[in-house]
Amino acid sequence: MNTDRPPPQRGFPEAEFARRLERAQDFMGRATMDALLFTTPEDIRYFSGFLTQFFQSPTRPWFLIVPKAGKPVAVIPTIGEVAMSRTWIEDIRTWSSPHPTDDGISLLAGTLAEFGHRIGLPMGREAALRMPLNDFARLRQRLDGAEFVDASPIIQALRLVKSELEIEKIAYACAAVGDAFDAAPELFSVGQSDVEAFRRFKIECLEQGVDDVSYLVGGAGAGGYGDIISPPSGRAIQTGDVLILDTGCTYDGYFCDFDRNFAFDNASDHVRRAYDTVYRATTAGLAAARPGASCADLFHAMQGVMAADGALGNDVGRLGHGLGLQLTEGPSNTPFDETELQPGMVMTLEPGMSFAPGKVMVHEENIVIRDGEPQLLSRRAAPELPVIG
Amino acid sequence: MNTDRPPPQRGFPEAEFARRLERAQDFMGRATMDALLFTTPEDIRYFSGFLTQFFQSPTRPWFLIVPKAGKPVAVIPTIGEVAMSRTWIEDIRTWSSPHPTDDGISLLAGTLAEFGHRIGLPMGREAALRMPLNDFARLRQRLDGAEFVDASPIIQALRLVKSELEIEKIAYACAAVGDAFDAAPELFSVGQSDVEAFRRFKIECLEQGVDDVSYLVGGAGAGGYGDIISPPSGRAIQTGDVLILDTGCTYDGYFCDFDRNFAFDNASDHVRRAYDTVYRATTAGLAAARPGASCADLFHAMQGVMAADGALGNDVGRLGHGLGLQLTEGPSNTPFDETELQPGMVMTLEPGMSFAPGKVMVHEENIVIRDGEPQLLSRRAAPELPVIG
Repeated sequence: MNTDRPPPQRGFPEAEFARRLERAQDFMGRATMDALLFTTPEDIRYFSGFLTQFFQSPTRPWFLIVPKAGKPVAVIPTIGEVAMSRTWIEDIRTWSSPHPTDDGISLLAGTLAEFGHRIGLPMGREAALRMPLNDFARLRQRLDGAEFVDASPIIQALRLVKSELEIEKIAYACAAVGDAFDAAPELFSVGQSDVEAFRRFKIECLEQGVDDVSYLVGGAGAGGYGDIISPPSGRAIQTGDVLILDTGCTYDGYFCDFDRNFAFDNASDHVRRAYDTVYRATTAGLAAARPGASCADLFHAMQGVMAADGALGNDVGRLGHGLGLQLTEGPSNTPFDETELQPGMVMTLEPGMSFAPGKVMVHEENIVIRDGEPQLLSRRAAPELPVIG
Repeated sequence: MNTDRPPPQRGFPEAEFARRLERAQDFMGRATMDALLFTTPEDIRYFSGFLTQFFQSPTRPWFLIVPKAGKPVAVIPTIGEVAMSRTWIEDIRTWSSPHPTDDGISLLAGTLAEFGHRIGLPMGREAALRMPLNDFARLRQRLDGAEFVDASPIIQALRLVKSELEIEKIAYACAAVGDAFDAAPELFSVGQSDVEAFRRFKIECLEQGVDDVSYLVGGAGAGGYGDIISPPSGRAIQTGDVLILDTGCTYDGYFCDFDRNFAFDNASDHVRRAYDTVYRATTAGLAAARPGASCADLFHAMQGVMAADGALGNDVGRLGHGLGLQLTEGPSNTPFDETELQPGMVMTLEPGMSFAPGKVMVHEENIVIRDGEPQLLSRRAAPELPVIG
């Protein structure tokens, strides 16, 4: 681990959760909701601080209820009781899971009924219900008369703006990954299999101090790459290749998400120009990232530069997004997302374009919206395409 | 990477997917379903071979349809088109996502309608729907007259039995992690922070050839640990501690899932006896793991040994589970799971018990059910608690 860059303290003081709860209850009051019901790891963690990789097991449902008054209540499998009791949550109700016939549904229904009948549940964009649909139908049956309403706008509005303590964790992950990218000339070489290149980069990120290399995708190809969401193929890196690595590494459960491009031995003028265009698109995004501007403004600022330079299109559907407890969070830099930028929002600027048939160029930086200029969390990419070898 | 243990070839021949499809369509015929609809990364990957970490972004829904006849049809965001076109799937329909008002729902509804009105969707144990509930409601509205029926039993029955090519991948991940655990005396030491111990182990697993250390949980405590689902806390390892590490590492998208225990400098007789009890419970599980026996039989075989030795209980709710594309899959070794063991099923044997208040001991091995004795995929844990230092 890089000891020159001491990691921020893990966890949060209780005051952080109290503030999140207070803001949620303020929204709930205005929307006349009696309780919010959460089922996903990130929403549960946001209100409780409960951090575990155990959610990778799909077997057991987990529930967190945020009532209109008072602290959140956890309704969880017994296996999580010890870990949950270390958080600020006091009311922890458990059942032995897996259960033959009633995997927490009676316990959840009984608990929800204590708080009222109008229940907010995230049902909109970016949301999913982490429990079997059959069990959700049973829950609705048990709560006859209860009304489930969409809580996606509430949870998204809450999670959008990060506290300084949250930003510190993201900044640390960004700094560690920045240092790992700086080691690229020692990590990557012509003749190396892309599987091995990915492996060396994952190890370097861990050595630099991230907790997990949760996400690493990319690709290499002669004069550019065509796909940015794939694992490595086993192909050896060749002279004239352009390699992109796009990584979401975590520290204490918070993500960075940015990429870097590298050419090997040489790069054509065409590739260099594409790199330069997308670099200048990022610059335009940084210039547009001001409180009061919208995500659509960010999109247009970046897209304008790429369109002027003859971009052939983009199949990603957006040019960046929110970032925090998840690799990607709302909002999205699309032409239709009118979400207003506010200080404390952590966003990615991710301009990308096709510059030749089957060849794309993508850059990405992580920023915090501040009064005035945004703060870069990722050290910015080199202004010219780096060439290794 | 350990070059003495060459990794299996990545991917599968088309015949593997053709067999999976044929078996699915056989089940569908008997259940008179017109199409199956899948939304989760693992179900989509099972039928298509489409492997990406991009599903960590919750923004876009992805769909795969398995019709009652013919090859699967992908209905996916444009960003996935290049990667999906490298699989055996031919019919790939895309839309630009995120979309302001219709995130694939019209396209999905139109495609489903081509195949009939009785649609199987996983809705039962272990299942979740990876799309917003609001969009699912819109889909049902668009498909007025369509009937959604639970396809969980079908997909679970299919994924339960692994092919030899799938088993090879799991075996490779197990072997790599086994070698990483063998390096424990060089990796872990008294005075080391558990954060650093986890980091060193993750790096060792990568060096040994796994693709990702997707899951690593555990804990250390004086004379034992109380919680097995948490990330490291920052506490330094001390003389007399027992450390457990439980890891799910992947190779080509397939998981191993097993743990190992280590004492530092010394271990009390009480801890050694607990280790021995749980070791013998594993032995009993191995002896019971025969085709025709049930998961409940596995549970009782292991639980019997621990109960006889005075176990204080177990808050995990099961003593092992299926393993493959996910860290945990059905079935579960519980008293109520009567799933019959069949050759080719990959299972974990995971006996665990409380042996003192707040102290648990858990072992885990990965096996394949074979005609006769099961095959161990994980090299078995040491018969006595290993002591480091």
